[in-house]
Amino acid sequence: MAPRGGKLGRTWRLQHRRGIWLKLPLALASHVPVAASSGFVFHHAEQDYVMMTHWLEEGKPCTLPPGPTHQVGVGALVLDKGGKNILAVQEKSGPLRGTGVWKMPTGLLDVGEDIGAGAEREVKEETGVSARFKHLIAFRHAHAFAFGKSDLFFLARLEVEDDSSLQPCPHEIAACDWVPLSLFLSQPRFLASPLYACVYDLCRDALPENEGKARPVTAIMGTQLKLGFKPGAAWLYHTSEWHHKKHGGKSEGEDGLEEGKGLGTTSGGD
Amino acid sequence: MAPRGGKLGRTWRLQHRRGIWLKLPLALASHVPVAASSGFVFHHAEQDYVMMTHWLEEGKPCTLPPGPTHQVGVGALVLDKGGKNILAVQEKSGPLRGTGVWKMPTGLLDVGEDIGAGAEREVKEETGVSARFKHLIAFRHAHAFAFGKSDLFFLARLEVEDDSSLQPCPHEIAACDWVPLSLFLSQPRFLASPLYACVYDLCRDALPENEGKARPVTAIMGTQLKLGFKPGAAWLYHTSEWHHKKHGGKSEGEDGLEEGKGLGTTSGGD
Repeated sequence: MAPRGGKLGRTWRLQHRRGIWLKLPLALASHVPVAASSGFVFHHAEQDYVMMTHWLEEGKPCTLPPGPTHQVGVGALVLDKGGKNILAVQEKSGPLRGTGVWKMPTGLLDVGEDIGAGAEREVKEETGVSARFKHLIAFRHAHAFAFGKSDLFFLARLEVEDDSSLQPCPHEIAACDWVPLSLFLSQPRFLASPLYACVYDLCRDALPENEGKARPVTAIMGTQLKLGFKPGAAWLYHTSEWHHKKHGGKSEGEDGLEEGKGLGTTSGGD
Repeated sequence: MAPRGGKLGRTWRLQHRRGIWLKLPLALASHVPVAASSGFVFHHAEQDYVMMTHWLEEGKPCTLPPGPTHQVGVGALVLDKGGKNILAVQEKSGPLRGTGVWKMPTGLLDVGEDIGAGAEREVKEETGVSARFKHLIAFRHAHAFAFGKSDLFFLARLEVEDDSSLQPCPHEIAACDWVPLSLFLSQPRFLASPLYACVYDLCRDALPENEGKARPVTAIMGTQLKLGFKPGAAWLYHTSEWHHKKHGGKSEGEDGLEEGKGLGTTSGGD
């Protein structure tokens, strides 16, 4: 059997190279099978190129950095000027299509986009409403999403700038409205999920009428919660000591999984 | 010119398909140039396959979901049992190699790994120390990292379980020690960076001696800070109203960029 990488592989080893990167543009796709038969494997790809790598140090673990592992989503909590209604949409596609379930505007971050800017863009695109990023309420980390990658979802509080008109996106949005908070927060679909129930409690804390009631903390706490709508769990990170105890149910020093809603938690402070 | 996708493209269009996914394993790399010449482009890749896509609705924007856009890093603040020294390393490679600069253990999340678990693993791998995830201190979002992707970095507070021995990783770590906090936090390399200066202030808040002194908030706030060590800025998300004001310097309702350290901020609460 020929040595790894053939003649070139020998040259590279003499140059004390440990690994080789090969970036092939779409126009040079004919080189992909040649590289593959020379010991290269895929690394990552964008629309116009594929990156391949060849690790030369047989028997030693490959130390080349991995490709991207996560997609990042954003959602937006936007209240009208009166603070009694939430900006909500019904989607034309996805698992909630045709269910009549109201949800907050959400979407994936573009490459190079900041979280607040992404939340503002999604609200504008889906509903036509201009709103300004204030802060984050919570974020959720979960795995095995599209293409086996992980997903970070950031829920942002946005301040509405003009609540006088709605222009739902004709491609993505079936319905769009200012929905009474009491109706929105009591949707059975979400209350059946320990994860969503905790998110909705955190949203309640963000309402003007509840200002000052939440018990603040000086750290971002993690609470592992069951999804409810399907098997599995996800970590929710937030700043409410009260909801941490209520939904996580575990105090510092305890071990193992809880029998209740929460699966596990981190401590609330030093 | 032949229609997009040739005969197959016509068949797919008759079936009202809007886009086609083609997953080619490494062993079928010879099909890559065939697909490319039929109108397919790259989408993403893992070591053993490349995913290609073909959007059939000419003139309409492609609505196929994008591939992963982010890598996720974790760092760990670990104090010894006495609370006076921080677990610090000097790396064998990277921009700080040979500089004598002490840093907290850091690394990239593996696919499917939770943030706390990743921080615990990196501490164990780099220093041999067992420590348990408590909570997050802050996280940083920045762009144009490896392969043009974005980067989310989570700084976690870990509780040490045994501080009696250190076993630095021979491959990655040049030095590893319990470094006095006063020395660690006063390293000029980091204080020259508005971003790091804010991170270090947040670390100080996490010390046992400062317990209860930080002014807590009920939201995760974002502060946009200059990097300092190179051009550009990043968003730092945390829970300290005081550092938000100190480093961000902007109160709610103000617009535009600050002249001081901070570039922009989000508000501290509803």
